[in-house]
Amino acid sequence: MDMLWNGWGDPARATPLPDTVTGVLRELLGVKPRDTAPVPLEKIGVPASPLDDAARRALETAVGDRPERVRTDAETRVRHTRGKSTPDLLRMRTGDAADAPAAVVLPDGHDEVLAVLDACARHGLALAPFGGGTSVVGGLAPEGRSGPARFVALDLRHMNRLLDLDEVSRTATLQPGLRAPEAEALLAERGYTLGHFPQSYEWATIGGFAATRSSGQASAGYGRFDEMVLGLTLATPEGALDTGRAPRSAAGPDLRQLVLGSEGAFGVITSVTVRVRPLPEVRRHEGWRFASFDAGAAALRRLAQDGPRPTVLRLSDETETLIGLARPDAIGASLERQDAGCLAVVGFEGTGEDTTHRRERAAAVLRECGGTFAGDEPGERWAHGRYSAPYLRDSLLDAGALAETLETATYWSKIPALYAAVRDALTGTLTEAGTPPLVMCHISHVYENGASLYFTVVSAQGEDPLAHWSRAKHAANEAILTAGGTITHHHGVGTDHRDWYVREAGPLGVAALRAVKRSLDPAGLLSPGVLLPGDRPAPTTHSHHP
Amino acid sequence: MDMLWNGWGDPARATPLPDTVTGVLRELLGVKPRDTAPVPLEKIGVPASPLDDAARRALETAVGDRPERVRTDAETRVRHTRGKSTPDLLRMRTGDAADAPAAVVLPDGHDEVLAVLDACARHGLALAPFGGGTSVVGGLAPEGRSGPARFVALDLRHMNRLLDLDEVSRTATLQPGLRAPEAEALLAERGYTLGHFPQSYEWATIGGFAATRSSGQASAGYGRFDEMVLGLTLATPEGALDTGRAPRSAAGPDLRQLVLGSEGAFGVITSVTVRVRPLPEVRRHEGWRFASFDAGAAALRRLAQDGPRPTVLRLSDETETLIGLARPDAIGASLERQDAGCLAVVGFEGTGEDTTHRRERAAAVLRECGGTFAGDEPGERWAHGRYSAPYLRDSLLDAGALAETLETATYWSKIPALYAAVRDALTGTLTEAGTPPLVMCHISHVYENGASLYFTVVSAQGEDPLAHWSRAKHAANEAILTAGGTITHHHGVGTDHRDWYVREAGPLGVAALRAVKRSLDPAGLLSPGVLLPGDRPAPTTHSHHP
Repeated sequence: MDMLWNGWGDPARATPLPDTVTGVLRELLGVKPRDTAPVPLEKIGVPASPLDDAARRALETAVGDRPERVRTDAETRVRHTRGKSTPDLLRMRTGDAADAPAAVVLPDGHDEVLAVLDACARHGLALAPFGGGTSVVGGLAPEGRSGPARFVALDLRHMNRLLDLDEVSRTATLQPGLRAPEAEALLAERGYTLGHFPQSYEWATIGGFAATRSSGQASAGYGRFDEMVLGLTLATPEGALDTGRAPRSAAGPDLRQLVLGSEGAFGVITSVTVRVRPLPEVRRHEGWRFASFDAGAAALRRLAQDGPRPTVLRLSDETETLIGLARPDAIGASLERQDAGCLAVVGFEGTGEDTTHRRERAAAVLRECGGTFAGDEPGERWAHGRYSAPYLRDSLLDAGALAETLETATYWSKIPALYAAVRDALTGTLTEAGTPPLVMCHISHVYENGASLYFTVVSAQGEDPLAHWSRAKHAANEAILTAGGTITHHHGVGTDHRDWYVREAGPLGVAALRAVKRSLDPAGLLSPGVLLPGDRPAPTTHSHHP
Repeated sequence: MDMLWNGWGDPARATPLPDTVTGVLRELLGVKPRDTAPVPLEKIGVPASPLDDAARRALETAVGDRPERVRTDAETRVRHTRGKSTPDLLRMRTGDAADAPAAVVLPDGHDEVLAVLDACARHGLALAPFGGGTSVVGGLAPEGRSGPARFVALDLRHMNRLLDLDEVSRTATLQPGLRAPEAEALLAERGYTLGHFPQSYEWATIGGFAATRSSGQASAGYGRFDEMVLGLTLATPEGALDTGRAPRSAAGPDLRQLVLGSEGAFGVITSVTVRVRPLPEVRRHEGWRFASFDAGAAALRRLAQDGPRPTVLRLSDETETLIGLARPDAIGASLERQDAGCLAVVGFEGTGEDTTHRRERAAAVLRECGGTFAGDEPGERWAHGRYSAPYLRDSLLDAGALAETLETATYWSKIPALYAAVRDALTGTLTEAGTPPLVMCHISHVYENGASLYFTVVSAQGEDPLAHWSRAKHAANEAILTAGGTITHHHGVGTDHRDWYVREAGPLGVAALRAVKRSLDPAGLLSPGVLLPGDRPAPTTHSHHP
């Protein structure tokens, strides 16, 4: 099934807002219903495909002489235009598909990807890999030197096989187009799990997780996706790069870590070898309450540093707890109850014995840190609604509100200042613009040495919602860099974070990455403008139409 | 204190061979006492330093106008010639110091390193960082396009400070020239440990650990050094590269992982931020016996995959167990006892409660896997002698034997074939050459998905020990690549593994790394020939002597 083209996920699962929330939006935030409905799919004005016949024939040849694997119809192109950030959705709702791809190409394997890259090079086309289409950082819409690039979206949905399962080593080799639930189903048949459950789980793909350094909600137990990856194959215009002869090695810099996070700018990931684990016997989530965000954060830090490590470990700040965002399918209920303090969700997966032991010891630590056990209900409700928040955003946009998320990470000692700086930047900017926001935050990924902060912002849309959000986002990004955070903990860089990423990586970091890109993609055809500022040479000299 | 110039460590700790071992060498391996003694230090023929006065003045200026920090005396240069591989020692014993550095420069901090790099660039000198001098892969002797390079050894011993300790985040920022025991002492004063205990522990430095992706004997519990690193500063001819704004990030490829393992070829590491942990309350090591290497390996795999994870987890094969190499300070004793099967050393560090719990559960698993508890004695003896093996090598060389180690890693399913392939390659080559060897092996680093194999080879030296070993090493390297292993799990690439590393990384991997090197070190002055084949441009066009 395809995702909703101008929103999230399965249209049948759209979630209307509870009355309590509608009340908050109106009374507290001054949200007014929008007077214009979103432009329907059939009315979107898609520019004609710039693909000429020679290029089309070359692409068709590359995918095994199958014309149906090179699509230029308006609907397919619209469905591959941008990702799922709020600005993406806002533009789509106004009918703006100006940066639609010239074509959508669906290869069947590594060799076809190499052939498509070759065809693109010969015909002066850029190319951007397209997995689940869930990017929220502008990672799918490459930029030409001015305006949208003339590009092919490489939809990897047919590359969806489990290529190998090594039960002795507990590794699986997966194709990049596998959506996470498909990958989990294939592994579950053999008794294994990957354990990667990001909010985008139902739609996002293995290749996308690797390309963007995704982090799942069970990262405390299973690690981030980049920590699960043992090997990668990358198809580039210069050929294939194979990495990962051993789990760990001292043979030079870790080339896997150069591919992870490369977001399509260095090549197309055509296979990913990951660590798998036995399916857990037990999955249990529970709620804990803390008097304050600081107190809760100290408890999470204690568990992350001294153990025992739960599988899921999250903490909502006071506002998010009050609104009930920790449980998206019960949104508003906590508002009625006026839930005070901060809710933490603590989850355990594993064998029965191990889970029981870890749970008991963790409970002792959480109590020592001032936590109060809130029963299983808040945890199980969170688990039930864990993939629902993006649906809620669609409903908020429908109701005329602006809703978006952003995230960062830093070391534990800097967390309080980073938290305050980003919250103040968002609140200040949007209040000054006349639309005071609700700013909510949670910690969802913990490490021995630091943690991530995930912010959700809701406000009225203002006159020009795109410009409105852009100002707030800009202020938040500046606050993040100033307070010592990373510009993104798990959403990736894309085009939206690029200018701040360049500052974070520094001139020599950027020089090194540009050098890598030029060595693998000398013509600059891969996702220009994504990750690094585009320096794509004019597609003329070596292009010829046979 | 300086290390023994033509051997390992502290001359006062030289370890004579027990009679049982001398017997084995003579009877079993046909080792004959050498008829020539090693050339003494004062008789080594060191070529005159090619450093001219202008270059010397520039280097002196770079290190704060301190002439004593630019040394060209023969002894200092000999002490900075090569590392501590057996070929290095064999050459040194014959008085060959042909590739001594032109000068040894001792900077005091990051800015002085940048200034030294600048002076080297201006005067056409290459530069190789020198930490503990313990490289066993030719990482300290850069190569010119033909023959030894004209280079400066940058001795980092004065950069030995703890720059910062963040107790909330549990991170420490260390200068690169700190030897491991110095670093541990500084951290212990504050109640922390790094937990990095490689065999080179007593001499090797923090910068070296990072540059070579070192792995310590407690890696099962504390992780590899590259897993401890959170941030690095790299001084390059193009300026400084700072990495690590957060423990984990999705902001592009991980630049830390490009610096880790770069072995001085991309820059000089001038600070390392590492994760630290509280000093353990308990340290306990014990012995377990298994009927075979396969049975023991299966037990280690079980602990690595399903836990509980000990802090130290090692397994010697039948030969190593019989010889007693698992306990270097008791070498030969097991031979008298005719110890059968395979000895595993299992160690636990942590709080009393945690250690007890892990130890009990691990014991149950080890028993289930066919292990027999052998008491604390073998574990504690191993712990006592854990840094002694290199001393034993000196004694073996003195006795006329050839002794060297090499290591690799792969996935669990490939371990048996890799083990057999390397053992057969070493045994076959040396037997064919008329000096049948003893080949011993242990697993010393385990991961969920694979493990390392560490081989020790002892044979007679033959007519030309250097050529003799070179043939065996070449055969082992070929076997490693063919059997799917990595060319090095923790020794690094240096110059010795470079030709095989190039094949492991593949043409695109090498192209990407070369591109990175050129972006940070356009003149190619950093450790030419280390890691990647040297492509140092002739040092003429931009060199001028003011």
